[in-house]
Amino acid sequence: MSNSQQAEALRTAMAEAAAEIDQALDLLIPPSEGPEARLFDAMRHAAIGGGKRLRGFLVLEGARQFGVGRDSALRAAAAIEMLHAYSLVHDDLPCMDDDDLRRGKPTVHKAFDEATAVLAGDALQANAFHALAEPETHADPAVRAELCRCLARAAGPRGMCGGQMLDMLAEAAAEPLEEAEIGRLQTLKTGKLIEFAAEAGAILGKAPPQLRQALCSYGRDLGAAFQIADDLLDATASPEETGKRTGKDAAAGKATLVGLLGLPRAQAQAETLAAQAASHLDALGDRADLLRALAAYAIARRN
Amino acid sequence: MSNSQQAEALRTAMAEAAAEIDQALDLLIPPSEGPEARLFDAMRHAAIGGGKRLRGFLVLEGARQFGVGRDSALRAAAAIEMLHAYSLVHDDLPCMDDDDLRRGKPTVHKAFDEATAVLAGDALQANAFHALAEPETHADPAVRAELCRCLARAAGPRGMCGGQMLDMLAEAAAEPLEEAEIGRLQTLKTGKLIEFAAEAGAILGKAPPQLRQALCSYGRDLGAAFQIADDLLDATASPEETGKRTGKDAAAGKATLVGLLGLPRAQAQAETLAAQAASHLDALGDRADLLRALAAYAIARRN
Repeated sequence: MSNSQQAEALRTAMAEAAAEIDQALDLLIPPSEGPEARLFDAMRHAAIGGGKRLRGFLVLEGARQFGVGRDSALRAAAAIEMLHAYSLVHDDLPCMDDDDLRRGKPTVHKAFDEATAVLAGDALQANAFHALAEPETHADPAVRAELCRCLARAAGPRGMCGGQMLDMLAEAAAEPLEEAEIGRLQTLKTGKLIEFAAEAGAILGKAPPQLRQALCSYGRDLGAAFQIADDLLDATASPEETGKRTGKDAAAGKATLVGLLGLPRAQAQAETLAAQAASHLDALGDRADLLRALAAYAIARRN
Repeated sequence: MSNSQQAEALRTAMAEAAAEIDQALDLLIPPSEGPEARLFDAMRHAAIGGGKRLRGFLVLEGARQFGVGRDSALRAAAAIEMLHAYSLVHDDLPCMDDDDLRRGKPTVHKAFDEATAVLAGDALQANAFHALAEPETHADPAVRAELCRCLARAAGPRGMCGGQMLDMLAEAAAEPLEEAEIGRLQTLKTGKLIEFAAEAGAILGKAPPQLRQALCSYGRDLGAAFQIADDLLDATASPEETGKRTGKDAAAGKATLVGLLGLPRAQAQAETLAAQAASHLDALGDRADLLRALAAYAIARRN
């Protein structure tokens, strides 16, 4: 396939995956009756519709390498998307980044209220673990326990929450971060969950350790490339293109590699990481072509 | 043993359990170096020291019925206490109950800041699942997956988070709640997690279904009795006795059974529930004496 054919195949596959993930989320966060409907509505607002579903797509494509059943993979994909959605809801809170717009919609604390947003995020996190731990996700409880363990590690104080703490401290600090510190911050804040998303399919498929490790390494480099690309977009794209406020890193004085290295060097680094990500897939053959195309897309996208 | 001897034995056992749970928490949330130290400090502030450790004690005593190893039981106890601690941190936030004092200490958003409190709560929830899912908690992955599943259900939108939503809506509502609605609110908000704490020991011990069910039922009735006793204390005790602000239910116009039924009928209902809780333990023999004493303590305590 040519590059443009590959890009087209990826676009189609990601759109299909996003639709399937939304269906899975609709079942895992059903519309509810009674007084608690407001909580379910806020969770659905945060989790369903919109978003590239990068993490969910990684789960589905990783799982496909090992012949994992689609329903099983979709539950894991939806779980990771719920975890990601919770992190966005809390990051957008007034006491955090104070954002009004997310995925082209009002943020949860704007559409509902602040207390409901805290609660909806909390409930989405619990629901993510519930989805992974239920027998429907995999017949083997060892697989379910391992999924829960790895998600908890990626989301906890040595993963996403730790990265968010570093980010908050960096904004308040007098000295700008150095390159290595920015790298560590982003590895924790967004990298660990993307890495787990790539690994989850291998866990579901009981892949041999070296293939599980290959997907992990792919996810790590892909996540780093995506993060730089996100920062490049924040610096150069419009809110209409991205569905969220842009230019906010510079406005907030946020430490990003784009700010530190400048646009051309940051772009070059993203390209290196994307190529490196694809190289980890050599043992997987043609079946991994969409994952290879995703690495190329990571740095070429405009949203 | 006489009633006062039983009460003394319970007091000693709870104090020992609280000390052991604090040690387990100290290992699960170790003091950290580097810039993320602030997040670990906030988590430790919230989770370590203070508190009756009712939930953790229930895990330990439930596990003892079935000969579960102490280290295993302590990890599960610490996990449930981390989950409980996270819920307190978020409930105390300015956008929720806006409390300054908890367990005799400043709340996390007072001792640190609001964003750190949101994040510390989030990280404590993730850490709770991590502790349950790690192989150190139980050699059998089916036990670990089941613990994660039940904790997630108790904590999620059909458990604690759902109850908190009902509580927020009740405060904002024009009409006071009816007795059945208050019961449902409290079952969700505090009951489900206490029920799971009582059940967790049976899961760890792979207890036969009828004994697991007995502990569940005990936990459910005990939790309901504890909640009414908490509301009675809020209405009648001083902050010095309880280590937190009191009289706040009435001040906030909160719907409680004490407010609806009056003190004597609420006290009578708590006593009925405590007796009913103890009755579920009949199949367990003398080994469950501390759990029986706990039901009596639930309604007699002053803090």
